[in-house]
Amino acid sequence: MFITGGTFDKEYNELNGNLYFKETHLFEMLHLGRSRLDLSIETLMMKDSLDFIEEDRAIIAKACNLSKSSKILITHGTDTMTITAEYLMQQCKDKTIVLTGAMVPYKFGSSDGLFNLGSALAFVQVLSPGVYIVMNGKVFEAGKVKKNTEKGEFEAII
Amino acid sequence: MFITGGTFDKEYNELNGNLYFKETHLFEMLHLGRSRLDLSIETLMMKDSLDFIEEDRAIIAKACNLSKSSKILITHGTDTMTITAEYLMQQCKDKTIVLTGAMVPYKFGSSDGLFNLGSALAFVQVLSPGVYIVMNGKVFEAGKVKKNTEKGEFEAII
Amino acid sequence: MFITGGTFDKEYNELNGNLYFKETHLFEMLHLGRSRLDLSIETLMMKDSLDFIEEDRAIIAKACNLSKSSKILITHGTDTMTITAEYLMQQCKDKTIVLTGAMVPYKFGSSDGLFNLGSALAFVQVLSPGVYIVMNGKVFEAGKVKKNTEKGEFEAII
Amino acid sequence: MFITGGTFDKEYNELNGNLYFKETHLFEMLHLGRSRLDLSIETLMMKDSLDFIEEDRAIIAKACNLSKSSKILITHGTDTMTITAEYLMQQCKDKTIVLTGAMVPYKFGSSDGLFNLGSALAFVQVLSPGVYIVMNGKVFEAGKVKKNTEKGEFEAII
Repeated sequence: MFITGGTFDKEYNELNGNLYFKETHLFEMLHLGRSRLDLSIETLMMKDSLDFIEEDRAIIAKACNLSKSSKILITHGTDTMTITAEYLMQQCKDKTIVLTGAMVPYKFGSSDGLFNLGSALAFVQVLSPGVYIVMNGKVFEAGKVKKNTEKGEFEAII
Repeated sequence: MFITGGTFDKEYNELNGNLYFKETHLFEMLHLGRSRLDLSIETLMMKDSLDFIEEDRAIIAKACNLSKSSKILITHGTDTMTITAEYLMQQCKDKTIVLTGAMVPYKFGSSDGLFNLGSALAFVQVLSPGVYIVMNGKVFEAGKVKKNTEKGEFEAII
Repeated sequence: MFITGGTFDKEYNELNGNLYFKETHLFEMLHLGRSRLDLSIETLMMKDSLDFIEEDRAIIAKACNLSKSSKILITHGTDTMTITAEYLMQQCKDKTIVLTGAMVPYKFGSSDGLFNLGSALAFVQVLSPGVYIVMNGKVFEAGKVKKNTEKGEFEAII
Repeated sequence: MFITGGTFDKEYNELNGNLYFKETHLFEMLHLGRSRLDLSIETLMMKDSLDFIEEDRAIIAKACNLSKSSKILITHGTDTMTITAEYLMQQCKDKTIVLTGAMVPYKFGSSDGLFNLGSALAFVQVLSPGVYIVMNGKVFEAGKVKKNTEKGEFEAII
């Protein structure tokens, strides 16, 4: 698993009322889910995906290619998740790569993060090589999905 | 989806301090997870799986066989989940049936329910026909899994 | 009780990642706290207290003076809570007025809101007429308290 | 503050589905509430108040009398809270003693515990010597209150 930030990991700064990144909640979430999967977890960056530059995507692609694992889960902000997915589709071959995220920070009680983490970890175990986005309980192939920013959900491109 | 009760749906009765079943939290959990899957949900019973009698399992098997869907998710208490899975393996052919549950009630804050629901819904979409148990982020085939009651987790039978 | 907004009632907008006001959570919080107090609740405004203008404080003072109750609780953003308290001290006599708020939105799981609401409702019942701020489990008299913005807590002015 | 157990501190045992006591959540709750009160906290016992014997109440009374503080908060199961309050009224003079508890365990998300803790800490600071029960946002004098077990709330005895 590679962690890149995104809404998943945002926290509320009670001193100034802003949202910010402190550290990932992935370990806490996996503990809560009683996950017994054998995972290797690395934080690549802690950024809002709107702030991603080309270099960030290159770092992610490189990490995927260098990884000994053939099954990779990436947590990622939802705003540019489809862009990174298409980029990885070009750069990384022969691996099952799943990107997931959250619409609401895990720390905010009503988050979809734990649900998405559960489904993403399941899909990555069984899907054939390729790059996928897992959101809303569904799996989408990279290049065939867009975020509907009005509804706040992901949709297949027909 | 068929709901049969289990820890998933237990609530705390503040008048007498006991745990009991009121109504399922599945709809609330799917809403929280921002699921956009097209699901048909039916409550078959609301029981602790330790209280299941043969008749209950017959009801579940019948519901699976009568269902028009070839992909079925069943929420079930963890204590006798493996027994029901083996029973369904005998009674239901040509369908992908996934059983899942929770170690801690959804209503109790620290529940694994949302994580399990996410992974179970993912696995049921992609697995080939058969009966499976999804717990702890893992998928197990019916008949090849047991609940380790000391650790509170599911393990493959070697 | 008068509701004026503040961190108490902020929510996370999952479409754009901003914090905003939708509606008050006071009723939900009082329900959660099993409050059986006979309360009359009115929303005067839904604003971040940094955005308060003199007119807003005049509205609050007028509402306090017009109220038939001699015991008034006001939920208020913490950033300018001390300013409003001093203003009310000038404008409203012969009433016990307590201002409280939260450092973290109620909706964000780790909020101090429910604790503050409990202590504020307790203090307002027993304190003699005057204007007070209740935060951090403590009560402060208007004019003798400041918000320590570095620590995120309220302190008595010596 | 003296901790005696009660619903406040019950946890869910995921191995056998029973409720039990592990350790108090008081420190976590005070942290969540951003309490800045100078408190001394001692756990006297961890029991369901239905299991209290005369000796338990003697221990509590002795602890109150030996305490250097004149203001004491006791967390207590709600089922026999009124009995302990009346007992303390006989045994402890010249101190402000407040008993509070919760209808739902703190760990179960929908608990009234944080609200009650906030109001109890407020009342104990300002009430004159005597023994009181703080529940449902209200304060009751020992001997003049009963638990309505059907409604799950405390009421004044008229």
